[in-house]
Amino acid sequence: MELNEQNYVHDGERVDQLYSQNIKIIQSPEVFSFSLDAVLLADFVRPDQKLKTRVVDLCAGNGAVGLFLNEKIRGQITEIELQPRLADMAKRSVALNQLVDRYQVLNMDIADTFSQVPKDSADIVVCNPPYFTDQPASKKNPNQYLAIARHELTTNLDTVIEIMSGLLKMNGHGYLVHRPDRLPEILSTLAAHRLAPKQIRFVYPKQGRNANMVLIEAIKDGRKGGTKILPPLIVSQDDDQYGPEVREMLYGKR
Amino acid sequence: MELNEQNYVHDGERVDQLYSQNIKIIQSPEVFSFSLDAVLLADFVRPDQKLKTRVVDLCAGNGAVGLFLNEKIRGQITEIELQPRLADMAKRSVALNQLVDRYQVLNMDIADTFSQVPKDSADIVVCNPPYFTDQPASKKNPNQYLAIARHELTTNLDTVIEIMSGLLKMNGHGYLVHRPDRLPEILSTLAAHRLAPKQIRFVYPKQGRNANMVLIEAIKDGRKGGTKILPPLIVSQDDDQYGPEVREMLYGKR
Repeated sequence: MELNEQNYVHDGERVDQLYSQNIKIIQSPEVFSFSLDAVLLADFVRPDQKLKTRVVDLCAGNGAVGLFLNEKIRGQITEIELQPRLADMAKRSVALNQLVDRYQVLNMDIADTFSQVPKDSADIVVCNPPYFTDQPASKKNPNQYLAIARHELTTNLDTVIEIMSGLLKMNGHGYLVHRPDRLPEILSTLAAHRLAPKQIRFVYPKQGRNANMVLIEAIKDGRKGGTKILPPLIVSQDDDQYGPEVREMLYGKR
Repeated sequence: MELNEQNYVHDGERVDQLYSQNIKIIQSPEVFSFSLDAVLLADFVRPDQKLKTRVVDLCAGNGAVGLFLNEKIRGQITEIELQPRLADMAKRSVALNQLVDRYQVLNMDIADTFSQVPKDSADIVVCNPPYFTDQPASKKNPNQYLAIARHELTTNLDTVIEIMSGLLKMNGHGYLVHRPDRLPEILSTLAAHRLAPKQIRFVYPKQGRNANMVLIEAIKDGRKGGTKILPPLIVSQDDDQYGPEVREMLYGKR
């Protein structure tokens, strides 16, 4: 059955698709579009093909991270997003991809998660949260959707990690993408919420530049110590083209 | 004046020198030789040419880290080492390099530091401490000198960082080389002792391998947040030769 995209896509929106992924993402340049962070976070998640696996995507935005997990994860995926406009896009993307049997989108504050999703029920929790503690200057962020997605206006790191931990079963895996300038705070907050960092990967925009993203895998009630620092991920080459690893994430194996 | 090395070097010892450094290090293959860690740590320290600068090298071993700072630092350098045999080598290296006016070597437990060096007196503290919490199996470490240098037998991370912080003036800089598998513990211990990580650099043995060392610069009473993750340092190339950055540290600019 060929779906008519026009039934799902509103004015000002478009349907984007990575060459590497058989999945369509509804987004809007004026409202919200997924960024490389979402692609990197989804790539960082270990594949889990068990049908009973339960995944929660916190601060899901237009649902891109969870949707990119479509082939890697075979179980049920719950996307939680505060902003109605973005949650609605996520819902329509789920429908457009005919994934309603495996995906649900909850439009609510992650602080209310446990009213809908039981504690200790998730095998995997992923989150691409707002990165910045500072309040956005109105000039910088005329787009309120983006302001909420990027700045800690409606949630904060402690809440994000508390909810991540509360959702996870013992030995469940939490995956986070964040800014490395907050690394000490991130690690202490994980520790405060029973999450042991198992693997950390730093993402560098280019050779010779400081890291601008960090990917963290943490295990609930996991063993302390033994954190692995994975090989660096360099996004772009000196010629400003994506490097081979990011190219494969975006365009697939060639 | 040409010094006769034989007056300073004991049986079983030798004098090593990096091509990049005009400094001689007395060491002994059977007892203790500096490793790449010492070179990387000294390289990581920011140059400071003020004559009044006070530096302390904790867990100094045969004094290599402090001695490698010879040109970068113009002030006074105190080396503190517990093991008499190693402290004695460090003393003789200082004499051999005619640096007795700028260097002192204290043979004592770092826990007793403040009996000899005042609190809040150092601009810079460097430390290449024992890395491993586990007790060495006797088979693995027949060499007791190395066992003490590598394993937390006579000191531990908390003490090292407590002493580092106690020595430093406000806004003084502490430099540490350690194992990245203990990163969360290192960062929480720094925070517990008023040290804010300012720059972190991960060291990878080769492309595609996990980090096996981490270099940390911390500021006493420094601003929290804003930690920079510096570009990765890859030690060896695929052909097992040192890469350009380490080559320059060892052999100088060519």
